[in-house]
Amino acid sequence: MAVYTQVDDAELIAFLSTYDIGDLLSCKGIAEGVENSNYFLHTSAGNFILTLYERRVAEADLPFFLGLMEHLATKGVTCPQPVRNRAGAALGRLAGRPAMIATFLDGYAVHHPEPAHCAALGDALARLHLAGAGFPLRRENALSVDAWRGLFAPAADRAAEVADDLRETVESELDLLENRWPRDLPRGVIHADLFPDNVFFLGDKISGLIDFYFACCDAFAYDLAICFNAWCFDAAHAYAPEKGVALLEAYARLRPLTPAEIDAFPLLARGAALRFLLTRYVDWLNVPEGALVRPKDPREYLAKLRFHRTVSDIGGYGLAL
Amino acid sequence: MAVYTQVDDAELIAFLSTYDIGDLLSCKGIAEGVENSNYFLHTSAGNFILTLYERRVAEADLPFFLGLMEHLATKGVTCPQPVRNRAGAALGRLAGRPAMIATFLDGYAVHHPEPAHCAALGDALARLHLAGAGFPLRRENALSVDAWRGLFAPAADRAAEVADDLRETVESELDLLENRWPRDLPRGVIHADLFPDNVFFLGDKISGLIDFYFACCDAFAYDLAICFNAWCFDAAHAYAPEKGVALLEAYARLRPLTPAEIDAFPLLARGAALRFLLTRYVDWLNVPEGALVRPKDPREYLAKLRFHRTVSDIGGYGLAL
Repeated sequence: MAVYTQVDDAELIAFLSTYDIGDLLSCKGIAEGVENSNYFLHTSAGNFILTLYERRVAEADLPFFLGLMEHLATKGVTCPQPVRNRAGAALGRLAGRPAMIATFLDGYAVHHPEPAHCAALGDALARLHLAGAGFPLRRENALSVDAWRGLFAPAADRAAEVADDLRETVESELDLLENRWPRDLPRGVIHADLFPDNVFFLGDKISGLIDFYFACCDAFAYDLAICFNAWCFDAAHAYAPEKGVALLEAYARLRPLTPAEIDAFPLLARGAALRFLLTRYVDWLNVPEGALVRPKDPREYLAKLRFHRTVSDIGGYGLAL
Repeated sequence: MAVYTQVDDAELIAFLSTYDIGDLLSCKGIAEGVENSNYFLHTSAGNFILTLYERRVAEADLPFFLGLMEHLATKGVTCPQPVRNRAGAALGRLAGRPAMIATFLDGYAVHHPEPAHCAALGDALARLHLAGAGFPLRRENALSVDAWRGLFAPAADRAAEVADDLRETVESELDLLENRWPRDLPRGVIHADLFPDNVFFLGDKISGLIDFYFACCDAFAYDLAICFNAWCFDAAHAYAPEKGVALLEAYARLRPLTPAEIDAFPLLARGAALRFLLTRYVDWLNVPEGALVRPKDPREYLAKLRFHRTVSDIGGYGLAL
């Protein structure tokens, strides 16, 4: 959850007066997103979401994120749409921060995904990857393999606070992944953070995707591996083959995996596990001052990483593509 | 802000199925209330607020709070109304906690109240006090003068962490207030926590009052003193006479103060300042585990208390009633 900034009512009313969405009726900080402050906004024109971008999001990246949400919508992917002000701008300034008003998306996160939810996700992820084609802006993945050693190094000394073998495991993974990371897989725009919190359902159907603030240009199969880790394990962090198979098969029905993607998948899953292990570990060590955030447990991703180290090919996940 | 409990989507859907308010469309934890977990709830029937009562609220008190909100509405005071389920109950159970769905109240808190806002508050507070007449349930004020010494004693040793003179100031106030606290002022149902966060405005007009979870039976003028402290000081914690006069005059227009209330007012203001100083001090020492709450600064109320110690009669606040 995140509400880092208090919005003054008078400032908010002045900000809203630059839009054509009626009068302020209500504005409440909500527990959504971890990089930004988010508010439920009710005006005489309806429900909206107001986002204030905090320092963790680079302002230079905002045109990529907002432009992507608009591009995806034109290709049939349901996601929040920036509301433009009377001057035509999607981005304004409020409480000293870049600010956006977006359409309100109905739907709710599924806390215990079943195989059917994983299949719906696979379908939505493939559609997202296909819909990204033609989006003209570029953003490199700032949290891919080349960044991982630099994330870990300053924090390595405290690794034993999380697990006895954390340091050794991370350093041996870094050696292996830096050496063998595939660089020529099919790539395009990926979400890079499509956890259950960021996928809204209404009943069994996905109603929309949110939180594009890690989106970037990278390998499609790496995005799939991120989802695989986030959706296809049980509450005890054990792999759930029926979920993994449902996700991968549904994805491949719309966007068949290439032989190179299939070969690389266990390695991508290890990398995806390491990436979230590292950022959770760093966040766990350094809860930002003033952030009302409960850090997520890095051990969850250590357990997933340990599992992937036992898998030699995609058959180890219970499927043959 | 407070969201102490995560609500599982499947549990929430089952809970909603006992109500006649349509299907779940969205549910987001919001930063409102500090004693409970609150969620913005959007269903096919509209917007609502879902509250889960955490351990800090005694379950035995809930019929008083919920009954009071219903009673006040029948007397023309706008406040959230509990939505009854198909069995006619205002209170259910969700995520192991007592849970209520209430109507959504438009309006927003005013962060920098002007004298006009204080006048509107005085009017609303008097109406609230008058509207409480005839409410049959009783709840003693668990945070009045008899409770204050017990609040401070276990925490007294750390007082110097907040201010050099905190311990001496509190102990001399306790001696004086326990000795001189007026016990026979006009009394009835009071809100007891009517801070700016709990008063919603639309433009210059109050649209409703929220958060009745400190409401109890006590002296009306003590409730007025709580508001006086919360609304009539500037950002540097200096008394703003034009606000204080606006509040007291507007209140007295609807419910004239008795001579005993006028005499007692400076003492009530000291007591009200001490009460919030003490609870903020204790909260500041003990942020509850798992609570994503930023503790409020006890020093604000120490400054207000110091000011009231310089005031000998109500004329010291700039008005003659």
